[in-house]
This record gives sequence, structure tokens and C-alpha cells, in this order.
Amino acid sequence: MRAEIIFIGTELLLGQIVNSNAVFLGQELISLGIDCYFQTIVGDNKDRIKEAFEIAIKRSDLIITTGGLGPTSDDLTTECLAEFFGEELVLDEKILQHIQNLFDKYNKKMAESNKKQALRPKSANILFNSAGTAPGIIWQKTFNEKQKIILTFPGVPTEVKIMWGEIAKPFLIDFLQSQNKNSEKLYFKELKFYGIGESDLAEKVQDLLDQNDPTTAPLAGQDECRLRIATKAINEEIANQKISEVESIIQKRVGQFIYGINQETLESVLIEKLKYKKQTIALAESCTGGLISKRLTDIPGSSVCIGLNIITYSNESKISLLKVKPQTLNEFGAVSEQTVLEMAAGIINLAKSDWALAVSGVAGPTGKPIGEIFLALINADNSFQEVKKLQLGNRSRKEIRWKTSQEALAWILKTI
Amino acid sequence: MRAEIIFIGTELLLGQIVNSNAVFLGQELISLGIDCYFQTIVGDNKDRIKEAFEIAIKRSDLIITTGGLGPTSDDLTTECLAEFFGEELVLDEKILQHIQNLFDKYNKKMAESNKKQALRPKSANILFNSAGTAPGIIWQKTFNEKQKIILTFPGVPTEVKIMWGEIAKPFLIDFLQSQNKNSEKLYFKELKFYGIGESDLAEKVQDLLDQNDPTTAPLAGQDECRLRIATKAINEEIANQKISEVESIIQKRVGQFIYGINQETLESVLIEKLKYKKQTIALAESCTGGLISKRLTDIPGSSVCIGLNIITYSNESKISLLKVKPQTLNEFGAVSEQTVLEMAAGIINLAKSDWALAVSGVAGPTGKPIGEIFLALINADNSFQEVKKLQLGNRSRKEIRWKTSQEALAWILKTI
Repeated sequence: MRAEIIFIGTELLLGQIVNSNAVFLGQELISLGIDCYFQTIVGDNKDRIKEAFEIAIKRSDLIITTGGLGPTSDDLTTECLAEFFGEELVLDEKILQHIQNLFDKYNKKMAESNKKQALRPKSANILFNSAGTAPGIIWQKTFNEKQKIILTFPGVPTEVKIMWGEIAKPFLIDFLQSQNKNSEKLYFKELKFYGIGESDLAEKVQDLLDQNDPTTAPLAGQDECRLRIATKAINEEIANQKISEVESIIQKRVGQFIYGINQETLESVLIEKLKYKKQTIALAESCTGGLISKRLTDIPGSSVCIGLNIITYSNESKISLLKVKPQTLNEFGAVSEQTVLEMAAGIINLAKSDWALAVSGVAGPTGKPIGEIFLALINADNSFQEVKKLQLGNRSRKEIRWKTSQEALAWILKTI
Repeated sequence: MRAEIIFIGTELLLGQIVNSNAVFLGQELISLGIDCYFQTIVGDNKDRIKEAFEIAIKRSDLIITTGGLGPTSDDLTTECLAEFFGEELVLDEKILQHIQNLFDKYNKKMAESNKKQALRPKSANILFNSAGTAPGIIWQKTFNEKQKIILTFPGVPTEVKIMWGEIAKPFLIDFLQSQNKNSEKLYFKELKFYGIGESDLAEKVQDLLDQNDPTTAPLAGQDECRLRIATKAINEEIANQKISEVESIIQKRVGQFIYGINQETLESVLIEKLKYKKQTIALAESCTGGLISKRLTDIPGSSVCIGLNIITYSNESKISLLKVKPQTLNEFGAVSEQTVLEMAAGIINLAKSDWALAVSGVAGPTGKPIGEIFLALINADNSFQEVKKLQLGNRSRKEIRWKTSQEALAWILKTI
């Protein structure tokens, strides 16, 4: 089964929002073993929506759309589809009631325009939206003598996720089972690297990149690299065996740079390791302003390893809370080896943690030298005490802060 | 001039990365007054890349591609274009030298495969990549008796930005000027709202949403709403006048919910306001783990208003650093009105700031009741001292933390 997604919304073309539905739907289709070869983004314009739809239906069996289901005159998806198939729109009383109920619940008057959201093409079914007023449709049509499925979703990502999970996914699983084919699915595993460049990595596994089954593809990340090993197989066991053969070759060659797999992040792997070792860490952040703390506490259960982090943005707070000596700041400055070491000593003393990391630097866009960062990592009994200097050069504030957090997390992970 | 973008890369279809190039290029094209009606995403497959290209060149004058310019066998963009136009690929000695220099600089041996990156279609020019080994091409071709421009970029967002700014943008500006048309550009202004729901907002400005020039379109954000007012005009002055007429109507009706415009965020507006009032704020975060501090320090120059923030994740650190009373924690718990008030008093005392915000809650996925959050906001002379309770219900940890940070920032902004 070949799928194609049409994302409808002028705001996507104008670059006003990130298309997070693309990430979600892309991953979901793969997990069902459905190939998606094309995605199209089109604005809120009737002719162009129909054009995109006409191209899609010729080459794909399943067409998924997002957007264009709201109550405004800009919302054209249902109308375009009905016109394309020459089908009449009918008012769905159940849906109208659902919308009415939502308005009643919040003590609001339903606008006349909301009635439009209860319209569906005559032979289509409703793809119910329990999270909002905009329902989608499920439509099974014959086109060029082939069976086609059309699923329409609103644009709001949380509603797409709920409608997918509650209705569309079970519907597609049923449909695939009814086709009763012993069909192959795509399985893949991602290896995540830190500390090696993309081209360097690609060179070391070039023979694997040229191989057809499993395929190995390099993916660039935010200051990290990934390799995706993928294969088609009729079940997971066969797939895993094929994938692990390739993985072991990669492990042998560049295993020291692999920090995790699939959805793992530096922060999630680090929290796991701290938990496993029953150790704690405390942070004293200056230029990163809480970013490292935020990333670590993004991970559920991180409270076992983290009790206290301090953001000492000013010199005064470095002195008063972390007991950095005023003469250290005077003599060497806030961005120096000496200062981060004293910050680390200060935070480990307050937090009584097993490890402490301190960071101070110039994130820009003002201040000099931009991108100069000092990190200190120490442990409770002072058997480990190191400083690292980064020169991140003329990057943006956002990039400098991010790269610093990556370096910090990778360093802690490697050390503890 | 009509543009169309083709994003090439299987990782985009699989949902493994967010397409941030779409946001950047979408905004850049608009700023040049170039309409972009379609975007297509296609995998690393020769036939399908050519198919996407064939559709695009029939309906658009400018075709921009990203991805597929690397050294591996998966990288097919240049090859596909040359085949499509039946043109030979030639080795560009200058580019080969540039790539060689990059490898020399990092003391690395250039792989044989990198030579592929120095190939270009015979009649195309190179779109130089000062940031990496993958150059793009600039190609002016006649197709169906019309002039077409093709620009190819690599997939790495930082390289796209640099190549766009250094070469593609000046090239397109020159080209547009050479066409010497008194052409209209699209101008727009976004109003950003907090504290009002999307449908509520739409209802209040329904007449404007139905209007054709300027158009007003509602956009959903992450826990906030936006209205985009857009118009085409031959210069900025005329556009601004048309836009400001609509804006003043919106201001009258729902002005109290507008917190900013265009690229402004709650955190950027808050930092501006603190700077303007020459005031400082300090945070004591528990469940948000540094997220609010991170968001505020994302803003350049925030160090003027922020000296110290503390993340007291554990009860011990709430007691030892913020002087929360053990009996308060025992009696009311860490997630309570009493605790956040004592946390706020503790941090304002340490930071000597004008304002202090404290937050404690259950971000999940474990703990009960999930989504129950207390926030306290106080000022230095205790003339303001309030607590806010949020019930964010059964959302994900990420959503609860984000929504809490939104509520906190909006509350501070409104209060100070």
C-alpha cells in the first residue's frame, strides 16, 4: 500500500509554523509498514488543493490530508474533495450535535459557520474528532478501477495524534489485515553518535552505505550524527537478525562514538546511567541559563539523580551562593578555568551530589570572545576534577548554547 | 515569479527529522515577494525525484531543492537534474580544490566519493558552499519556451542559510530587478495572543476573516493563538496603512489578549518590559526544571534582568537553600500554595530581585495528581503576593512543563 500526505495550509508555505504533523504521520505510516513516497504542501486555495489531490490519487492508494477542516472560509478540504469526485455534501446530524455539545460545555454560542464542519461527502464516513470541533472523513472510493482510501485530519497536531490513535490507525490495521497479505514491513534501527563528524563517519562505513539490504543511511542531527539501518522483512525477528549483523560491523569500527539508539538522547542515556549507578549530579550554569538543567529534567524520573541546580547569571550570585572568590572573578574573569572550578566546588558543596558540572562562557551576540566556554566537571571526593575549554566561534546564541549543552552532556556521560 | 520547493531526503518522509528548511525558505521567499504555491517532499529515489521535478517545472518558474548533494550513492539531485535535461556532468576543478582544501584544513584524506560533489551539469553554474563540501548549482534553463531558474542546496540547515544569504538571495534580487517590474510583494503582520482560545478569537473577528484584502487568517500555536494580517502592495508604506486599519479593529475587540507581534515571544516581550522598567526577576523552579529560566535566558541581553535562578528539584534543597519550612512540606506537601509562597520568599531573599516567581507541581508521567501546578509571584516589598493554581490534567510531561512556562511568563508579563 502506497500512501501520500497532503498538508494543507498557507501558513506552512509561508514558513510560519513547523510541520510537526509530518514527523508524526511519517513515523506512524512506517510503523504500519505503509510506504509513503511523496508529501505535498499546498496553501488554502481550491484549485491548487484539487491539483495536488489529482496528482496524489493517480500514484497512491492512501491519501492523508491535514488542515483545511476549520469553520472559516479558508477551510476548503472537504469541499475540494466533494467537488473532485462530483459528490454532494450532506449535513451529519451526529457531528452537528457533537459540535453543539462542545459549545454548550464551555457555555458558548455556536457560530453559524461551525455548521460547515458537520458537512461530509455523501458516501464518506466521519473520522471522529474527540478533541475538537473539526472532524475528518474516511472515504473509500474507486478511482481508475483501483480502490483508494482518503483520510482527512485537521491541522492541529494534538488533534491529529488523538484521531490517528483512536480511529485511523485501527481502521488501517483492519484494512491491511483484510487484504490478508503476508506483506513485508520496513524495520529500522538508528544508531546515534556524538564526537564524530558526518563525513568522517560516512567514510568509515562507506561499504555499508553502498549496500542494498539492509540499507544504511547517514542522517545529520543537531550537533550529532545518526546512522539508520533499515530492512524489509515479514517479521521483526528476521529484521532484527539482518539489522544486528550490520550493527555489529559498525560497532567494531566506530563503536566508541555511539551513545544510544532510536529515540534515545544524550540526556535520556545520561539519566539512565546515573540511575543505574545510583549517583546524583548538580549543575551550576551561567551562559546556558538553565538549558542543561531543562534537558536533564525533561526525562521522566530524573528527580532521583537531580536535587539542585543553580543558574548564577550574575557575578554577585556566583560569589554569594557558589562562594566563587571575588579576586578570582577580578583576576581571571567569569569566563575562566578558575571560575568554573570554583563554581563546581560551590554547587557540589550545596547539593551534596556525587558529581557537579559548572559552565560559564560567552553565548553572544554581544561580549567577547563569542563562543568561548569553560566547563568544569568534578566529583565528591575530588578524585576527578577537570576543565574543558570550547571555542565555538561565531555561531548564533542559540547554537552556542545548544552545542555547549551537547558537549556538557556527552562529557558527563563519558566520565561517570 | 512562482517558486516551488522540492525537499529531497528519505529521512523527511520517515519523520526522522523536522523540516526546518521549509520554515527558513518559506519566510525568505515571501520576503522577496516570490509566491510559493507548492512544496514537495520526496525520498532518495531517482525516478521519484525526477517525477517531482517534472511536475514542478511545468507550473513554477523557480525551483529550489534541498538535500541529495552529499558524496554518497544516496545523493542523487545533481544526477537527476542532468538526466532530466539530457545534459552531461562535468568536473568543476575549482570546487574540487575547495573540497580538497577543506579536507587539508582538518588534516583528513579526501575520499574518492567526494569527487562526485565537484560535478555539475555542463551549462549550470556552481552555488558555492562556504560552509561545507556540498556545493549547489544555479541553473537557468528554457523549458516550454519559458525561462526557469533552478537552485539546489544541501540538506543541512546551517549550510542552506549561509548559501542563501551569501549567493542565492543576492542572485534572486538581481534577477527580480532585471525583470524591472513594478511588482507587488506580500506584506504581513502577525498578532500574537495569549489567554484566548482559537475559536473564541475567530468568532470575535469573523468578519475580518471573511474579508479579501487584507486577508486575516487565524494560526494555531503552541498554547497560544496568532492572527496573520496580509496584503499585497507595491511598497511597504501602502501595505502598512492597509494592515494597520485591520489591526486597529482587532485591537479594539480583543486587544487585551495581544502580547506581541511577528517574531516576538512571551519571553522576549517580558525581558523587554523588565529592561524598560529597570527591574529584575528571580525564579525558583521545581517541576519545570529550568525550562522557564532557559526560555528567559534565550533572549540576548537578559542578564540585565536576571542574576540568579534556582532549580530546587528535591525537598532537601527547598529547605536548605530556599528556607522552606520542613513542617510546611510535611503538612501541605511540595505541591501546595504554602510551599510555592515560601519558595518565592526564599529566592527573592537570595537574589535581591524586584520580582520572584516560584513553581512546583506534578509534571508526570508518575505522581498524582498529574498536571496540578502551583505558581507564586511576589515582589520585593511584599505589596504583591499571589498564588495561582493550574489543573493541566492528563497531558504529557512535555506539554505540562511547556504550558506551565507559558502561564508563568504570561502572568509575570501581565503583572509587572
